[in-house]
Amino acid sequence: MTTLPSLPRKVAVIGAGDIGCGWAALCASAGWPVTIYDSNALGLERAAVEVPRRARALVVLERATGGMVERGLHELHQGRSLLQAVKGADWVIEAITEDLTAKQWLFESVEPLIEPDALLTSSSSGVPPTQLFARCRRRDRCLVTHPLNPPELIPLVEVVPGTGTGASEVVRAQQYLRALGRMPVLLKKPAPGYVVGRIAAAVWRECIDLVVNGVVDVDDLDRAVSLGPALGWAAAGPHLTYHLAAGDGGVTLFLQRLLASFEDWWEHLATWHKLDPEQRRALTDGVQQAYSNKIEALREARDRRLSAILRALEQARTG
Amino acid sequence: MTTLPSLPRKVAVIGAGDIGCGWAALCASAGWPVTIYDSNALGLERAAVEVPRRARALVVLERATGGMVERGLHELHQGRSLLQAVKGADWVIEAITEDLTAKQWLFESVEPLIEPDALLTSSSSGVPPTQLFARCRRRDRCLVTHPLNPPELIPLVEVVPGTGTGASEVVRAQQYLRALGRMPVLLKKPAPGYVVGRIAAAVWRECIDLVVNGVVDVDDLDRAVSLGPALGWAAAGPHLTYHLAAGDGGVTLFLQRLLASFEDWWEHLATWHKLDPEQRRALTDGVQQAYSNKIEALREARDRRLSAILRALEQARTG
Repeated sequence: MTTLPSLPRKVAVIGAGDIGCGWAALCASAGWPVTIYDSNALGLERAAVEVPRRARALVVLERATGGMVERGLHELHQGRSLLQAVKGADWVIEAITEDLTAKQWLFESVEPLIEPDALLTSSSSGVPPTQLFARCRRRDRCLVTHPLNPPELIPLVEVVPGTGTGASEVVRAQQYLRALGRMPVLLKKPAPGYVVGRIAAAVWRECIDLVVNGVVDVDDLDRAVSLGPALGWAAAGPHLTYHLAAGDGGVTLFLQRLLASFEDWWEHLATWHKLDPEQRRALTDGVQQAYSNKIEALREARDRRLSAILRALEQARTG
Repeated sequence: MTTLPSLPRKVAVIGAGDIGCGWAALCASAGWPVTIYDSNALGLERAAVEVPRRARALVVLERATGGMVERGLHELHQGRSLLQAVKGADWVIEAITEDLTAKQWLFESVEPLIEPDALLTSSSSGVPPTQLFARCRRRDRCLVTHPLNPPELIPLVEVVPGTGTGASEVVRAQQYLRALGRMPVLLKKPAPGYVVGRIAAAVWRECIDLVVNGVVDVDDLDRAVSLGPALGWAAAGPHLTYHLAAGDGGVTLFLQRLLASFEDWWEHLATWHKLDPEQRRALTDGVQQAYSNKIEALREARDRRLSAILRALEQARTG
């Protein structure tokens, strides 16, 4: 077995949507050669503008250096075919829409084309790897590396190996991710939605329910979460938060004091698992009323806040 | 009716635990005269050390100025009795343990002692005001102002009026909170757990479930939430996050693409509402293993991260 270099000589990104463009911008910002491919020619054209835009935005946001970004963008290519896109790539990143059949089909068709040593990762946000890679032969090099949106800014990447994934490939994926400044978190076993999807789903169901039931408006709810629990959890995860919320007594004392409240709330939380048409209408109306249509400006402001928080956390950790 | 000054001339804090000390430190850091009272003499003695410590920590964390803090601490007193504590106070803050009977009893006994114009607020984290103030006569000046932990750092305060609360008292509470640099969010109607408790309960249930089921370890879960969704929600609340996660298509397109995933996850989320003894043991064991016992050091590091994030957000908003 040959020893592989610790960094990929080339990355192939399949899928030129938001997540694919994010991966490509992130890899380019590290100076890595990237080829992006999409079966939709319009999507691929959009990526030719969007990836450089997002990679250069990282310089303004102080998340990358101009020299490195330009070096990466110099070697950014659009694949003319799936075959040409993955040729010579050590790392093939799937980032197409969240559709199991489409993903399975892609993995089946791309597997014979990729290099024998290439790592093949899926950006799925919640499908267990066993299902995703069900039609692959070489499952030892297949795993999930699930980024959040936008991938070039949020450090967390969930690493979800399948039963057949090789231990060395899991290490290699984490190595690539760390080289990109990401924080890989390894799941010990998969669950539908992994970790993030489940927590996000639990939060969003309750947020939708509170808005639909007229407890709070969309923008007030967002403000409450941002400047309340999310701020707390960004500084200390949920378990640590409660461990620190009862003086020196830790989580044991916290449970003694507040478990009864939590048990009462658990009993009252929303339990529906289909969003009915009326809820859906109330939700989209509420969101559109709160945020009008200036999505680009809202996203830019969000990205400024995100990168400011990241810099602050880095300084607080080293300082 | 006399016009009340826009800032309280004196604040009384009833309850010298973590939340009471936090309120007192926050008010003192704004230069306001504060009297803190606790029926437990030991708790009150501890507050005499803890409130100045926490108020002065705000200076180190760049959340308050030294001059203002010392001015407030100069007028920080320990009440010798409930009557003496609330005498002359424009704002009486209840911050005793989360026990409905104890709170009801306190409100009943304190009501005849407070000034006719005083605002009376509860720090309850989830009990509807109608129950909290059930035994009060003058409910027009009673409402919930629920802070998070630590109250002197996290800006959000949930403002939950009861059916009998006067509109002018709601305005006044928000005015006081804004003067303390807090971000009041007004609930249109109460729900058990209000907004924050419900969302926190939804998150914590799933976090406990993921740990107990062996999907992820306590510290990895905390890291995943901190550097993943919490970071995102701190920069943009949940609804805005999903509104920005599907290009220019907004929440409507996001739902088209990902509602099926969310509906699948909603179906699979934890539904238990009692923490059984085995879960409880697994949780406390996991938390203690992850964080050992250095609670004070962990809290200091958390507070450094929290204040760094707050400064970053303020700069990103004004810059």
